[in-house]
This record gives sequence, structure tokens and C-alpha cells, in this order.
Amino acid sequence: MNRTNPTPTMKDVAAEAGVALGTVSKVVNGLPVGESYRVRVEEAIKKLNYQVNSYAQGLKLNKTRTVALLIPNTTEPFYGSLVHHINISLLKRQYRMLLCCTDLHGGLEQEYVNMVQQNKVDGIIGLTYDPNLKVDAGTPYVSIDRSAGPGVPCVASDNFAGGQLAAEKLADLGCRKVAFLRTGSSLANEPNKRKAGFENGCLSRKLSYEMKIISDGEPYEEFDRFLISHMRDGKLEFDGLFCVTDSLAYYVLKVLRRLGLRVPEDVQVIGFDGIRHLGFHDYVCSTIVQPVEEIAEMCVTLLLQENMPVKPPLVCLPVAYAYGGTTAEGREGDAPLSRQ
Amino acid sequence: MNRTNPTPTMKDVAAEAGVALGTVSKVVNGLPVGESYRVRVEEAIKKLNYQVNSYAQGLKLNKTRTVALLIPNTTEPFYGSLVHHINISLLKRQYRMLLCCTDLHGGLEQEYVNMVQQNKVDGIIGLTYDPNLKVDAGTPYVSIDRSAGPGVPCVASDNFAGGQLAAEKLADLGCRKVAFLRTGSSLANEPNKRKAGFENGCLSRKLSYEMKIISDGEPYEEFDRFLISHMRDGKLEFDGLFCVTDSLAYYVLKVLRRLGLRVPEDVQVIGFDGIRHLGFHDYVCSTIVQPVEEIAEMCVTLLLQENMPVKPPLVCLPVAYAYGGTTAEGREGDAPLSRQ
Repeated sequence: MNRTNPTPTMKDVAAEAGVALGTVSKVVNGLPVGESYRVRVEEAIKKLNYQVNSYAQGLKLNKTRTVALLIPNTTEPFYGSLVHHINISLLKRQYRMLLCCTDLHGGLEQEYVNMVQQNKVDGIIGLTYDPNLKVDAGTPYVSIDRSAGPGVPCVASDNFAGGQLAAEKLADLGCRKVAFLRTGSSLANEPNKRKAGFENGCLSRKLSYEMKIISDGEPYEEFDRFLISHMRDGKLEFDGLFCVTDSLAYYVLKVLRRLGLRVPEDVQVIGFDGIRHLGFHDYVCSTIVQPVEEIAEMCVTLLLQENMPVKPPLVCLPVAYAYGGTTAEGREGDAPLSRQ
Repeated sequence: MNRTNPTPTMKDVAAEAGVALGTVSKVVNGLPVGESYRVRVEEAIKKLNYQVNSYAQGLKLNKTRTVALLIPNTTEPFYGSLVHHINISLLKRQYRMLLCCTDLHGGLEQEYVNMVQQNKVDGIIGLTYDPNLKVDAGTPYVSIDRSAGPGVPCVASDNFAGGQLAAEKLADLGCRKVAFLRTGSSLANEPNKRKAGFENGCLSRKLSYEMKIISDGEPYEEFDRFLISHMRDGKLEFDGLFCVTDSLAYYVLKVLRRLGLRVPEDVQVIGFDGIRHLGFHDYVCSTIVQPVEEIAEMCVTLLLQENMPVKPPLVCLPVAYAYGGTTAEGREGDAPLSRQ
């Protein structure tokens, strides 16, 4: 790597062009100035490879070309993937991302919102859990997965359709008695619709089902107990399981292995999210894939679309089923991706 | 969520205090002003909950309390974990992170550096691959995993010790003939020392070894061919494999399964990084764990330590071995973590 001289300032441009600092400022800010001056300043800018300080410009224009993203962490794959694609969508529009990871302590979401508002970010995209979060009416804001009240668009997967698709897939693949396993936030949010969608799918396909739902603080071992309580003579009463996330499916697959059950022969398993092992290998399980790239692009589009008189309150994007080795229809190997 | 009124500005404070805007500015910037004015401004600041715009202040002080992080992506778990911990380390010091994901196209690392320098970030932390990357001498800079030239501290795991530890572990666990499998960048970098460390460990333990090293563009199937070429009568000639990353180990474990080989009974496998499935479940394999939290903290400490006359050119942080089911010493279940 080479260490170069400091980047040129507006003063350097003025010296190079032989004009006053104010003249450079006018040219940079698009204000009228004599043609010969404008040419000299533009040539100096080109020669020195001077780039406008967009923070300084932002303070004048009330723009910083910076968007804050509030998200719990970047260590869980679904969040890591969202961060990645929102970053790409912002970059395409010459916007930068201020990353605010919020799962360190309870009040951090509000602290971050206060901080970034004071610093004039052009908007906030948030996947948040604080139901009382306060965001200025003047700050463009888009929420992921949770409604944040009137005037704030919420972008999510079509979680209801995803739950329904999981039930229909299990029915199509020959299941007769299935269960839905869920853990997670008790807050009203879009992912909670997976349950209603699944129930709807079971009812329409006349599929017998049970639910095991635990709340955030409870231990995963509750699922072990639930499954064990449904064992009869070494067999599980269910031949299909729908897990609310791939992460839960990963845990459940290990429990099933310990119980001596074969997947998919004895019981088929479908997860939700579309996570791949280590970021880019095979799917963790057969799964309902969230369209992360489309969610990211939609959030950024809605956030920066200033001349949109009415913003949609809720945008649900289509999910897809992908085979990942834990259902009966495919073979081992690369998972095909079938659109819904 | 509640939508509140816009955050108060300096003008609001001036109006509330009944003083001129310049007086508020002086108080905020710590300049001398009559005591009664100072008290009135401070009371107005408190009443309105006005917070100083740190970007605006940053332009004056040449500080923005913002650090840019250049990293390939947030979808691969090692990068996602680094982003997470660097964010925490910055947050503890009231710094924000500007996230710059760079693996979209070749020139992006330099574009990002140019952009953030123009915007007066207080420093850059980079895990970069462009050997010709140019960073201003005046911009504090810390590099991860790759030396970026004189004056730029490089922070990494002790990769040599990690390679050596992998060889010693395989020897301790009864291996007699082992192989090192590597893919990755051909650039000079710290992770490349895993190879030399492994060789050193094999030599000191009189462990017979081979190497299979492929470069970035080549297909992983080269490893299939290498392993198949070392099969004799349904048995692999190696009883231990050291894979340069957990991601490669994950791939190799699948190849071994296809070849009908049992892990760890027929062949033991050690990876590198310390990745857990889906962010927080069990280890992908027995592995040399990188101290991601310590790397993050060291990068931020070195970056922001302004009054340090000489910065260390290379900091290597200790790694640890963790059992993850693919070596012979343990049982199934939670992996214990043994410090080196």
C-alpha cells in the first residue's frame, strides 16, 4: 500500500486556480460565477482530483447521503445477509450505511435513533424490537418486519404465504399429522403470521396439526420435551415439522437424531429464512426462502423516494420454497429453487 | 412507535434562551461568553433536550467520531463476527461505524477509501485485498490480516501458532499421516502462515504430511480429486486433515461422507476460524478459534490511540483449539473450549 499526500481541500483548489476561496465555494455549490472563473476552478478541481466534502455540503443542503441501519447483530445469518444487501442497494445510489447493531442492551435502539437524528442522516431503516421507539416525524423511516405506526412503511416477506406454503408442501409430500414449532418475540410483527398461514394451509389441506410455541426467555429444551411426549413405541406421532426459523430447524434436527429418528424418512422438516451453511454452501434444511435482496432494495427505494405522496404502509414480498435435504421429494446434492 | 416533533436546532435554543445564535454557538463550542448568557443557554439546552450536531462540530474540530470499516461482506460468518465486535468496540467509545462492504467489484476498496477520506472519518479499519490501495498518510489506518506498509499497524490471529497447534493436536490424537488443504488469496498475508506453522508442527512431531493448495479461481473439486487419488482399497491414506478454514472443512466433510469415510474414526478433521452453525449453535468442526473479540478491540485501540509515538507494525493474538465433533478426543455434545 502507498501512503499518499493528504487529499486536496477547497483552499488547494483556490490556490491552484488563482481565485478566492468564495469563488470555489460558489462553483462547487452551483451558484452563479463568471464563466472564466468557473472554467479555471473546474480545471483545478480536475487537476487536483478534488472531491466535494459531502458532509460539509450535507450540512448546507441538509443531506449527508448517509442512511442508518438499526439491526440486532451481524452474527446471525439472516441479519448478516440483510446488512449486506441493504449496503449494496445504498451503494448503488451513492449512499453510505451507518451500521447500528442493537442487541447489546435494551435502550440502545432509542439511543441510536437519537444519535443519528442529531447527525442528520437522510433516513433510518430499522429492524427493531422496542415497541415505544420514537423517531422524529421529519426523519424518513422504513421498518422491517414490524409496523412502526402510520406513515412508516413496513417491508417484510409474505410470511402468511410462507407458512401456508410450508403446510401445503408437507401435505403434497405425503404428511398426515404435522406440528408447528415456534420461538421468538411476543411483539406483534410480520413473522408471527407464519403461524396463521400454516394453520390456514393445514385446514385447507385437511392436515391434522399441533403447535408448540415458546416465548423468548424459555429454553429450547421445551421442544425436546414436546417431541419426546409425542413418541409412541420409538416412533414420532408427527411425520412433518414446520420450524419458524432455519436456526430452530437446525436445533430440532439434532434432537430428532438423538431420538433415533431419520429425516426425511421418519419425519420431514421445513424451516424458514433460506439460510445457507457458512454463508454460501448448501441450505441448512428444506426451507421457505426470504427474498432478502428484494427486501433490501424495497426498503431503500421507499426510504429515498421523496416525491411519493402516499407511501405503502405494508409491503409483503413473495417467498419461495427450496429443497434442502430434509424433505422427501429430492435427492442429496445441490438444492433446486422452486418459485412459489 | 411514536412520531415526535423534529429535534431542536441551535436556532430553537437561541429563541428559548432569548440570545443571539452566535452566543449559543460560543457556549456549545466552549468559547468565552458572559456568565449570565452561558447559564441561560445551558438551561435552554437542557429544557429542549438539544444535542450538539457532532458532524457540524466535527467539521470544525476535524473530528466526526466515525470510523470506516472496509470488509468484503457480512454474509460469511467470520466477517459478520468481526463487524459485530468492531461495532461494539467503537460504540463503547462513542464512535460510529461506516460500513463499507467491498467484494462487489475490484476497484471498490479504493473508491471507498477516497470517499471516506473526503468525508473526514476519524480513521479506517480495513480487511482488504488490493495490494496497491492508497490511504492518505494523515488518515489513521489499521489493517487486519495484511501488512499495509510502514506506519500502518496490522492486527491478526497468531496464524503460525494456529497451524502448529493443528499439527500437534492431530499428532496427539494419534494421527500418523496428515494433509493440509488450502484455498485462498495468493497475496502475502497473515493467514498464509497457517501453512508454515502446520509444516513446523508436523516436522517437530515427525508427522508425515502432504499439501494440496489451490488458488482463488480454481474449483473446490480439486480437493475431491486429491482425496480420491489418495484412496487405497476403500481407505484414505491420511488419518488427519487440516483445512485452512472451517468453510473448507465443511466442504471436505461432505466429500469424505460421499467417499464412505467416517469422521473421526477413519479420518480426523481440524478447521480454522471457530465458526458456529447459524451464528451461535455448535462448532462446524474441531477448529482453531480466532479471537475475534480481541482482534476487534485491538484494532480500535490502536486506531484511536493518538498519543502513541510508535505503533506496533504487527500484533498477533493468541488462538485456541476447540473440539467440534470431527476429532477423536471427545464425545458428541457441546464442545469444550481449551485455551492454547
